[in-house]
Amino acid sequence: MTYCVAVRVDQGLVMLSDTRTNAGMDNIARFRKSFTYHVPGERAITLMCSGNLSITQGVKATLSKAIKEARLDPGVETILNCETMHRVAQIVGEAMRAMQLRYRESIEMGGSGSSASIMIAGQRRGGKPRLYLIYSAGNFIEATEDTPFFQIGEHKYGKPILDRIIKRETTLEDATKAVLVSMDSTLRSNLSVGMPLDLTVIPTDAYDFRVRTRIEADNEEFAMISQSWSAALRKGFEDLPNVLD
Amino acid sequence: MTYCVAVRVDQGLVMLSDTRTNAGMDNIARFRKSFTYHVPGERAITLMCSGNLSITQGVKATLSKAIKEARLDPGVETILNCETMHRVAQIVGEAMRAMQLRYRESIEMGGSGSSASIMIAGQRRGGKPRLYLIYSAGNFIEATEDTPFFQIGEHKYGKPILDRIIKRETTLEDATKAVLVSMDSTLRSNLSVGMPLDLTVIPTDAYDFRVRTRIEADNEEFAMISQSWSAALRKGFEDLPNVLD
Repeated sequence: MTYCVAVRVDQGLVMLSDTRTNAGMDNIARFRKSFTYHVPGERAITLMCSGNLSITQGVKATLSKAIKEARLDPGVETILNCETMHRVAQIVGEAMRAMQLRYRESIEMGGSGSSASIMIAGQRRGGKPRLYLIYSAGNFIEATEDTPFFQIGEHKYGKPILDRIIKRETTLEDATKAVLVSMDSTLRSNLSVGMPLDLTVIPTDAYDFRVRTRIEADNEEFAMISQSWSAALRKGFEDLPNVLD
Repeated sequence: MTYCVAVRVDQGLVMLSDTRTNAGMDNIARFRKSFTYHVPGERAITLMCSGNLSITQGVKATLSKAIKEARLDPGVETILNCETMHRVAQIVGEAMRAMQLRYRESIEMGGSGSSASIMIAGQRRGGKPRLYLIYSAGNFIEATEDTPFFQIGEHKYGKPILDRIIKRETTLEDATKAVLVSMDSTLRSNLSVGMPLDLTVIPTDAYDFRVRTRIEADNEEFAMISQSWSAALRKGFEDLPNVLD
């Protein structure tokens, strides 16, 4: 499985993904699920994938092929030169739909599932930070003020803390801590989600990444977040009023 | 949906369930999912259900019918007079299997699911406190020292806190607080789980219920647990080290 979470607050965008892919618990592998696209000073985009790996890798290959072609023929539309983030979501959705049309039937004949989802978060100069969730059919939804975060994959374990913390006014610092705590809870409760993690932070109107890093299993800052959170939960739990007389 | 959680620690058993049943979000109803069976001084048992309501009600009807019959004919075996808690689990499993054999095909023909699960927790004089999880096929597993709690229904939201807190040495007081906090997280994140709640606590070697109560939406103790936990999480979150420089 997978756990990816993306947050859109007034101060910008925060994206975090794990790296564990498995086809059954006896076939665990590691694959990057976060990918970044960047035109310095003009746009910064993070893409995160879950679901059928061959489908999502196919979508990325389609996007990359277009970007390569556009170097020779600037008329080719890509996620790096298209007009809006909304158009970026459409391009990714079209690639998703094409992959599903090509492979869905034969994948399902083999007894596997072809479904996949992709989150796109980014900002281009002249637009606002945007966050989209693209489904297997190529259709998509956008995060709004009422729903400032999206999750894909094993989302339930890590949802309670996001429900409590994330609002549009939440700072980028707090949003980053919240997605790390959300991931920490998921890692502890579900073996199919695993370290290392990929974290990106795109501040509003920066058109650049403030953070674009891999957090390895031995990362001290993440260990500190994880331990502090454990201690806080334990302390908070101990301080709860007793309900048995 | 449903959320039921049952814990077996050295000091005894704690069971908590919600009461929301829905067949689609536009058809929400309230049904009790916890049921208690008691022979004072000899055995105390709590049964909790999730899944297809007609199936689990049918299982309960089968158990009750036997108990009624045993009043006239003490030779009839029931969950109140059988030899061990293991036999209680078998009897419930047999009732489950009979219901599935009778209705599964016609339920599935109508496009619904017949699957259901039942948790049985209790102790009889001469035995230890036991906790069983019974599946649709009538087979069952028992909670062990390594896995001291079971959950059925919407279990993922509330699992992280149980993973952190519940060990076999956990006190009955702490286990009760933990299941309430676990339910609180689930209630906040999933609309298909709803108040009121049914809580039972069976201390080891008491053969009786220390707590057997319904917690209504306006219950002050639960509200205090919920608020204290919110405040503790918020405080703990604020105290986390900052990861962005």
